[in-house]
Amino acid sequence: MKIGKQTIKFENTPIIRECGSVVGPKEKSGPLSGFFDTVLDDVYFGEDSFEKAESKLIQHAVNMALNKSKTDIKDIEYMFSGDLLNQCISSGYALRELQIPFFGLYGACSTFSEANILAASFVNAGYATNCIAAASSHFCSAERQFRLPLEQGTQTPPTGQWTVTGSGATLISNSKEDKLNHYPKITYATPGKVIDMGITDIANMGAAMAPAAFDTIITHLEDTGRDANYYDLIVTGDLGKLGSEILIEQLQKYGIDISHVHNDCGLMIFDCSAQDTKAGGSGCGCSASVFSGFIYKKLLDKSLNKVLLISTGALMSPVSLGQGESIPSIAHAVAIENI
Amino acid sequence: MKIGKQTIKFENTPIIRECGSVVGPKEKSGPLSGFFDTVLDDVYFGEDSFEKAESKLIQHAVNMALNKSKTDIKDIEYMFSGDLLNQCISSGYALRELQIPFFGLYGACSTFSEANILAASFVNAGYATNCIAAASSHFCSAERQFRLPLEQGTQTPPTGQWTVTGSGATLISNSKEDKLNHYPKITYATPGKVIDMGITDIANMGAAMAPAAFDTIITHLEDTGRDANYYDLIVTGDLGKLGSEILIEQLQKYGIDISHVHNDCGLMIFDCSAQDTKAGGSGCGCSASVFSGFIYKKLLDKSLNKVLLISTGALMSPVSLGQGESIPSIAHAVAIENI
Repeated sequence: MKIGKQTIKFENTPIIRECGSVVGPKEKSGPLSGFFDTVLDDVYFGEDSFEKAESKLIQHAVNMALNKSKTDIKDIEYMFSGDLLNQCISSGYALRELQIPFFGLYGACSTFSEANILAASFVNAGYATNCIAAASSHFCSAERQFRLPLEQGTQTPPTGQWTVTGSGATLISNSKEDKLNHYPKITYATPGKVIDMGITDIANMGAAMAPAAFDTIITHLEDTGRDANYYDLIVTGDLGKLGSEILIEQLQKYGIDISHVHNDCGLMIFDCSAQDTKAGGSGCGCSASVFSGFIYKKLLDKSLNKVLLISTGALMSPVSLGQGESIPSIAHAVAIENI
Repeated sequence: MKIGKQTIKFENTPIIRECGSVVGPKEKSGPLSGFFDTVLDDVYFGEDSFEKAESKLIQHAVNMALNKSKTDIKDIEYMFSGDLLNQCISSGYALRELQIPFFGLYGACSTFSEANILAASFVNAGYATNCIAAASSHFCSAERQFRLPLEQGTQTPPTGQWTVTGSGATLISNSKEDKLNHYPKITYATPGKVIDMGITDIANMGAAMAPAAFDTIITHLEDTGRDANYYDLIVTGDLGKLGSEILIEQLQKYGIDISHVHNDCGLMIFDCSAQDTKAGGSGCGCSASVFSGFIYKKLLDKSLNKVLLISTGALMSPVSLGQGESIPSIAHAVAIENI
């Protein structure tokens, strides 16, 4: 059901029945290391290219979610997935192996929220009993595609962010059976608009994306009539240090204080000063792995009960920036609650 | 409601209330010229790059659909859109101007069907009253991204296809008001799986995509219990001459004869021999503009009443082909009917 300006209420409360997560070696050294299903020592994941490794990350995350929930892949009706690579090849080739009817998405680093909104929409409406939502990114494939070849050894400025090597997948199911009723539920979704405040610095994506998160958060709170403090955790995807500061400050000016409940997946996955990851983690795989590996487990053990996940994406390309365009951004919000 | 293996039945029969279409100069010389809302003489559409022109194509198609239906853009709740460009910048920048909550898609040339399935899913479920589905492509931006710079003047082999410069947009609305009941309705959707039969020739995309169309068509017919002859028109997106022949032959071997009801948007938009467009048109904009410009008008005037649209997409990238991968493909089917 539509409520307010742009929010969907999922009256049949689809559940997140299981998650799968996998990260790379840099994330293995980070504070959340112990929470991921799989932590890799090899950035190639046994493949002969970074792109093939990234595709395998998605497959692995999906298979972890299926195995842990003892669900047969044949019982998954649709999968919603995307990534940062040109033509979303990480997802496309992963789905060639998985053989699930597939909706390919591109929302840059907002893709994980976008996928969860669509999967929940399908389950809530009765189009499916089980859907998978997933996203991935890989530091090495992203660097050479968006920035410069790794071999060049260029330095990242302090405002720059570090693309997460990782993937996360959620298994979203209907909650008609009573025995499934204790799982975390997707209750609301607020899909975002494209917001562009004129930022052109690719090494300052947090600043470009913060206004999109701002717009989606105020819309979500207005549409649902909720106060920011309703949530135990309002977690953005990859605003990093600078973007998070901008978001909190702008919301404060608007009369909303999220400072006590806010965190950012990009700040949670790395110890930025110790690991030299500059302003924090980024990439589709950032919110995907942090939600699937860490936040979901906290929802399961009830140490978190009301979470608003807002994955944030910057929709530019090297070509659009080269043509003098600024960075348009988007943020999609999903409420996940124990109710 | 889910029926059969992977088909959705839209019980609330969302309508296609209006379409907008725009094409470039090459398409202007083609057989469907008189059906498009706007035909351009300038491939730049007044912009300073092909990519900016393509983004303007999407905006224009959406605005045409809104203007023709006298719908305020503020009444559009969600838009589903995608294109072929890296990071889908054509859609991303278009949505910056349109300011509609946005789901970015990547399904290569299957994107137009994918967008219509998702928009119809949202309207059917009551998440929205009005949604837009759209897709675009541009010959010049696609050539330099996927193949070679135009300035190089390379020739296309006979099996190669010609990317359509164009965009199409559908306005999908609920049909609760009786006065809207005469519009064409979206009745069923069969989202496709990724199929890869090992084709590696980028100049023979029809052959790569035909097996995906085959898989989706037989699944659709089995799921719905319909015979191929139920439809007045089974129209693929951009299989072109060779891909269409393969599809018809493979279906015949399987005991299904679509030869009398099949056509392909890539064969409809160009007079291939007179216009030297080799095996036919292709690109996200191909099925988008042919459906929105031509087929929809035939549904409105009842010369067509039962149409199955199967946009077909090849999910490779220049990087994946360079790494020795074959071309994975996907086809999404949407049934549009006067009922």
